Amino acid sequence: MNKSLTASVSPALVSYKGSSKIFTLTSSEHNIEVGSWKIDSTQLGILDTYFIVEQKVLHGGKQEGSKIIVITSPNGLTITLSPTRGMSIINVTGKEMRFGWDSPVKEIVNPAFINLESRNGAGWLEGFNEMVVRCGFEWAGHPGVENGEMRTLHGKAGNTPASEVEIEINEEAPYEIKVRGLIKESTFKKADLRTVAELIYIPDTHHFTIHDQLTNHADYPRDYQIMYHSNFSKPLLEKDTQFIAPIKEISPFNDYAKSGLKNYSTYLGPTKDFDEMVFNIVPYTTADGSTVAALHNKDGSKGAAIEFNINELPFLTLWKNTDTEKQGYVTGIEPGTNYAYAAPIEREQNRIRQINAGETVHFKVKYSALMNKQAVDTVKKIIADIQGKQETTFIETPIAKE
Amino acid sequence: MNKSLTASVSPALVSYKGSSKIFTLTSSEHNIEVGSWKIDSTQLGILDTYFIVEQKVLHGGKQEGSKIIVITSPNGLTITLSPTRGMSIINVTGKEMRFGWDSPVKEIVNPAFINLESRNGAGWLEGFNEMVVRCGFEWAGHPGVENGEMRTLHGKAGNTPASEVEIEINEEAPYEIKVRGLIKESTFKKADLRTVAELIYIPDTHHFTIHDQLTNHADYPRDYQIMYHSNFSKPLLEKDTQFIAPIKEISPFNDYAKSGLKNYSTYLGPTKDFDEMVFNIVPYTTADGSTVAALHNKDGSKGAAIEFNINELPFLTLWKNTDTEKQGYVTGIEPGTNYAYAAPIEREQNRIRQINAGETVHFKVKYSALMNKQAVDTVKKIIADIQGKQETTFIETPIAKE
Amino acid sequence: MNKSLTASVSPALVSYKGSSKIFTLTSSEHNIEVGSWKIDSTQLGILDTYFIVEQKVLHGGKQEGSKIIVITSPNGLTITLSPTRGMSIINVTGKEMRFGWDSPVKEIVNPAFINLESRNGAGWLEGFNEMVVRCGFEWAGHPGVENGEMRTLHGKAGNTPASEVEIEINEEAPYEIKVRGLIKESTFKKADLRTVAELIYIPDTHHFTIHDQLTNHADYPRDYQIMYHSNFSKPLLEKDTQFIAPIKEISPFNDYAKSGLKNYSTYLGPTKDFDEMVFNIVPYTTADGSTVAALHNKDGSKGAAIEFNINELPFLTLWKNTDTEKQGYVTGIEPGTNYAYAAPIEREQNRIRQINAGETVHFKVKYSALMNKQAVDTVKKIIADIQGKQETTFIETPIAKE
Repeated sequence: MNKSLTASVSPALVSYKGSSKIFTLTSSEHNIEVGSWKIDSTQLGILDTYFIVEQKVLHGGKQEGSKIIVITSPNGLTITLSPTRGMSIINVTGKEMRFGWDSPVKEIVNPAFINLESRNGAGWLEGFNEMVVRCGFEWAGHPGVENGEMRTLHGKAGNTPASEVEIEINEEAPYEIKVRGLIKESTFKKADLRTVAELIYIPDTHHFTIHDQLTNHADYPRDYQIMYHSNFSKPLLEKDTQFIAPIKEISPFNDYAKSGLKNYSTYLGPTKDFDEMVFNIVPYTTADGSTVAALHNKDGSKGAAIEFNINELPFLTLWKNTDTEKQGYVTGIEPGTNYAYAAPIEREQNRIRQINAGETVHFKVKYSALMNKQAVDTVKKIIADIQGKQETTFIETPIAKE
Repeated sequence: MNKSLTASVSPALVSYKGSSKIFTLTSSEHNIEVGSWKIDSTQLGILDTYFIVEQKVLHGGKQEGSKIIVITSPNGLTITLSPTRGMSIINVTGKEMRFGWDSPVKEIVNPAFINLESRNGAGWLEGFNEMVVRCGFEWAGHPGVENGEMRTLHGKAGNTPASEVEIEINEEAPYEIKVRGLIKESTFKKADLRTVAELIYIPDTHHFTIHDQLTNHADYPRDYQIMYHSNFSKPLLEKDTQFIAPIKEISPFNDYAKSGLKNYSTYLGPTKDFDEMVFNIVPYTTADGSTVAALHNKDGSKGAAIEFNINELPFLTLWKNTDTEKQGYVTGIEPGTNYAYAAPIEREQNRIRQINAGETVHFKVKYSALMNKQAVDTVKKIIADIQGKQETTFIETPIAKE
Repeated sequence: MNKSLTASVSPALVSYKGSSKIFTLTSSEHNIEVGSWKIDSTQLGILDTYFIVEQKVLHGGKQEGSKIIVITSPNGLTITLSPTRGMSIINVTGKEMRFGWDSPVKEIVNPAFINLESRNGAGWLEGFNEMVVRCGFEWAGHPGVENGEMRTLHGKAGNTPASEVEIEINEEAPYEIKVRGLIKESTFKKADLRTVAELIYIPDTHHFTIHDQLTNHADYPRDYQIMYHSNFSKPLLEKDTQFIAPIKEISPFNDYAKSGLKNYSTYLGPTKDFDEMVFNIVPYTTADGSTVAALHNKDGSKGAAIEFNINELPFLTLWKNTDTEKQGYVTGIEPGTNYAYAAPIEREQNRIRQINAGETVHFKVKYSALMNKQAVDTVKKIIADIQGKQETTFIETPIAKE
């Protein structure tokens, strides 16, 4: 038996909040690192459903020392996230369902081995394989130089190990599970943005929610950007998969995407030399700002829905990377505070937000696995209702040139 | 209990030198890493005073794997340094006394997570929170390009894990404690500078000394720079805190500092939008080159003194960063071989020194916590005596422009 | 006793292939990391020879967490390689024999502490001390910018920790030992090159072979470069050591090397201010493309031979770095797919190869320690026979200017 297989499971620090038990797995403040850890519902005296939550320490290559947390709900979803990689969601699976994709990057890369500045600011691509990666918060988008400093591709959050990690399990039905990590982007003279990045999941269900709280701990207002880069591939993505959303305005990201604008809603199968087409979208919403974007396979028998609110995340980027499977056959649906242009463009076009000193801003994104035709149809109807008779404006010319 | 709390304490390799016991905690040469380790004076049979020396391995976020060594002398000082961060002194505390400051960077960042080249050569700011950090030795000062290579902010020593770490405790009164680390800056074709970085402390006292021995192991003379970036905040720094030193010549670092030249010796309270003012100082000394710079609070009831010799460290940089507390309310008193200008300026103005092949140069800096008015007054008198009737030259125009 | 000395040896995962036993020491796929591990021939029931294979985890400074694998054959060679550093061969020793050199870099640097982009793309020099380091595979050669991206000195393979590591020992005489590591250079949108890097050694012998299999896992053809940077110093390198090879064409790498062209085959002793002279060589071969380059000491009593095939590795770089001993007195004999010019030059001169989607290319390099005059003479005769009466073309002017 090798070391990783025999490693004893360490007990976590336990505390209580109402009817919830909180297990602290990592704390830089209290100098805690639990390492391998596992609990299942029976150990909590829960008998009317079954789930497991565990942390594993990974080994080999560039994932040496990375950690993953896996929530397993046999009748619902299995959700894998990585505290070492900024609480990114690596993968989500269910019965004949999967959120996520197959990147040529197979390992859960420890940020110690990543140089974000490499490849002219695109070093992020050496670790990119997540289902949801937070592009932010000090900056996001394509690499670009501002004030002499390289704003590396999609920022640092996804390559920042969480400083505090805890699992909160409600011991009363429906046994809500929260996995929380604190992501610090703290640099003397520059920024002190700290994000409590939370995943919320109820066992046996087919949906989960991200709830992030970004606080500016500095005494000055600071820029921030965030895009929830949410990625899907097979079995949801195939030839003639449909992207649906209530769309007020859509434009091609660049000249290459112009030719795909008309058919933005339909996907190709794996297509050699396709590379990627990106579209900028302003969604329509309900009166309170809520909206939904979704994806369903060709026959409408399964899909994914992403709910968000434009008061928090006003823009939506659609990333269609329907290249070959080994190259990464994947689409990203990315609600954000901005589009993916480099920082100087986003600034010029006023999409870089500021957070005041001491202020906290919230972001909620709900992901639903649409397990059957009925679920898909329900979401289609919601989207159609939001769109109503409102028209979609097609802007033919890219709004910016990188 | 979590792993870090239950981790057994490992015994260190022990050797002897005269009446001293030497504990080897880390050795790349002998492949030793003790990890968590602790000893107190009673274990050494010392009964007439009490102290603890311990090493801890840190966890969580970007401090995963960092180590700290803490010397605790209940009647004297508690000194925390980090072998992982180049033997930097993180913090020093005593009764109502503290050397150090509160950076927005809270963790003792493992250099594996630092990219010094990021932020246009200012990546060092992502880990900066020390009481004393060595800016050097291959280079120091502000980022600048020489021969196509970026000289990153304040060099690499502070982000280089020590290769050899040992604790030497004299078993005879007054039980002098030495903590030594070897910092290697060895690069094929470039430099082979190795520094034995030593902290010396006698239990129950309120002063400690840095004694560094920099050796050029190459067969060629090499450039070196060193600034002892020594940082203070509350309770020593407050509105009307005074900086005192025997000053031969003082100039503003840049245009912004010109307006503060006249009042260089007085500090503001936390001041929004103040940012930082920096002054270049040539000190007066005693006949042997010794000098003292000091800081005391408004009512002169406590302070800090820094003694050095201009034969080793001819220049003094005064860094007044009296911005808001969350931004980092701090002042740096920085004896060095140079000022903080980028390398091309320091070179042009002949402040970059060379060390011959095989040569060893020594640097000693003594830090004293002035615990009461009497101690402050004593230092004030020493400084006044060195200054005597000699005049201070105020150079109104910055000597260089970055 | 310190932790590293008392650490228990972990058993590896064992599997079988024919008459061979395979020990898995590291696996990112199966999440295995054995750490310290050791086996000797007696444990395998082998009684007619004796050898040890062990893995050690290193500590201290920038080698914290690095691993080495050491094969010890008391009557043959002791070979040390590092899985953490891309399966580089660190050192090879035998009776009065050594392959390798003394770099100012003494530690086996963990790539987590290396920034390849630093020093204007020459950060690789902060870890360079190997006997054989693979310069490749996504790129190699001197730093240079292509398409806005820095191609850092000699590529990433040597600073990539192996993802899968296994030891294969044949339990039948002559007990062939294979140490295999998988080096992944996988980046979304860029490359998915994976190399099975293998060392093959038979106990009691004085030669070993590298057999690398590079596979392009992408759906597109990709560039690759590889140079086997093979380095020698004392006792093989001394004043009047001879380099011999069947040479079709030789040219100086740059203007500085022009003056050394005539005496390319003879080495100087350690020479201050020599720096390095590099020569580009096209070798003559046997009918099947095989060739040999070799080195022997002044009196021809010991040497090293390197066998390769120009169908795999058409070019040979001779690196004469006969500077002082502390600076690194060393020569490199480097069979490769290219010369060491920066990528834009190699591309312009058509030496950057492509590997098709799904294709695997093989590279074999055999290293022999020539233990006595007879062995040296045998290799001299082989080389003389390949050269025969064919002339060597001396190109006086460098073929490119960096």
